[in-house]
Amino acid sequence: MTSVANANPNFDRLRIVLVETSHPGNIGAAARAMKNMGLSRLVLVKPEPKAWPSRDAVSMAASALDVLDGVLVTQSLSEAIADCHLVIGASARLRHMPVQLLDPPEAAARIESVRAEQEVALVFGREISGLSNEELHLCHYHVHIPVNPDYSSLNLAAAVMVLCYEVRKAALAANPAPAISAPEWDQAPATAEELDRYLAHLEKVLIQLDFLDPANPRQLLRRLRRLYQRIQPDRMEINILRGILTATETALGKREKDNS
Amino acid sequence: MTSVANANPNFDRLRIVLVETSHPGNIGAAARAMKNMGLSRLVLVKPEPKAWPSRDAVSMAASALDVLDGVLVTQSLSEAIADCHLVIGASARLRHMPVQLLDPPEAAARIESVRAEQEVALVFGREISGLSNEELHLCHYHVHIPVNPDYSSLNLAAAVMVLCYEVRKAALAANPAPAISAPEWDQAPATAEELDRYLAHLEKVLIQLDFLDPANPRQLLRRLRRLYQRIQPDRMEINILRGILTATETALGKREKDNS
Repeated sequence: MTSVANANPNFDRLRIVLVETSHPGNIGAAARAMKNMGLSRLVLVKPEPKAWPSRDAVSMAASALDVLDGVLVTQSLSEAIADCHLVIGASARLRHMPVQLLDPPEAAARIESVRAEQEVALVFGREISGLSNEELHLCHYHVHIPVNPDYSSLNLAAAVMVLCYEVRKAALAANPAPAISAPEWDQAPATAEELDRYLAHLEKVLIQLDFLDPANPRQLLRRLRRLYQRIQPDRMEINILRGILTATETALGKREKDNS
Repeated sequence: MTSVANANPNFDRLRIVLVETSHPGNIGAAARAMKNMGLSRLVLVKPEPKAWPSRDAVSMAASALDVLDGVLVTQSLSEAIADCHLVIGASARLRHMPVQLLDPPEAAARIESVRAEQEVALVFGREISGLSNEELHLCHYHVHIPVNPDYSSLNLAAAVMVLCYEVRKAALAANPAPAISAPEWDQAPATAEELDRYLAHLEKVLIQLDFLDPANPRQLLRRLRRLYQRIQPDRMEINILRGILTATETALGKREKDNS
């Protein structure tokens, strides 16, 4: 975009999200790792009070204080990623009903392919327990750093370092010529919030259809969330999908009225 | 070497050498990063007395205490690498009269190609000033981690992490183990025919819902096909989606019956 050599890729649309971090040093070290790799946007979801704000975070950040100055704090992961089009969560463990799992270079390639146009979040969980299953299900993809299976507990800042490093590498390696990149999609992508609204609408209709038992919705709703997150719908698609739900409600409403 | 799948490559001939480290936390964090990546041999060249031995090194090492237990201390870099065949030094800066400079994947590839037969050292300098020119000239190659040119000062343990990660990646790529591949999806993928049947069913229901005008279905159906093809649903997902359509038809059927 600029006339200068592309020494620092533009990562303005990429945020690092740390969920419920407990050690201040990790926040500082993550900020430093980010800045080393040219990233600047850090979001903290419900950091432990002793971790943020804190002097130790500042001291471990070395000269990456601008990253800490720009920190955004939210009360939930949903809030942190509401306007994101692509959400990738770091996952140490393999779960049943897995979301699509990427290795770090694959995750970086995916980010690289959309970072100019889309809001992207790279999400990291708690030091001890990582991301909850519910949080993992908010992610379109999981990324797993290949570790020693006998000692897999990565330091949080080390994990941030590795993924930011891969993201930077992918950006530096990317061919800047737009001619060979994928054709532009014809519609803007939906945000996480728009998708959430669709899924809430879907849930409501499925209950009306007696297809979903509200007493035990878990597995079905998770499967549907995984399905539609994988698809990364664009805005027109979300509108069509919601239109179908509204038409269904209208048809059911008529029935109710006819029955009354 | 073992009969088990090659989840942990053999890095017995690869040592990490830290020269005159001053912060004990960095020694501990480096040990942890090494163990995360399956490495175990750590050599400290003239560590600062406050850095080694120290309680902080132990605390930052988390459970990588076996790496610290095995630490070897030497009084010079020459001594640390005396029996090595290949020595690669991490270098933040470009020097005049440079030794051949590698990027991390290139360095990892070189290590991978000899690690079964040769003694190899990866050497890291002081936190503030890196390796001296004299020390750099003891290295066969230099390796440079691509950093933000405006903020290039990497934390020592972060640099160790990145290079050990690349080394592990190269080893796993050379001997692919099932451990790093994606977990198998929990359901079989739907076939094109199953997807077609779903789309036909969807079309039928959309007409019943008055959402689709059969006289002019083109654009809408194409968009829906594109959407669901992109998703590559598995068989259970297709069953859920068809279940929703059937539930919708049942609900609509009741209405028809009630109306008749």
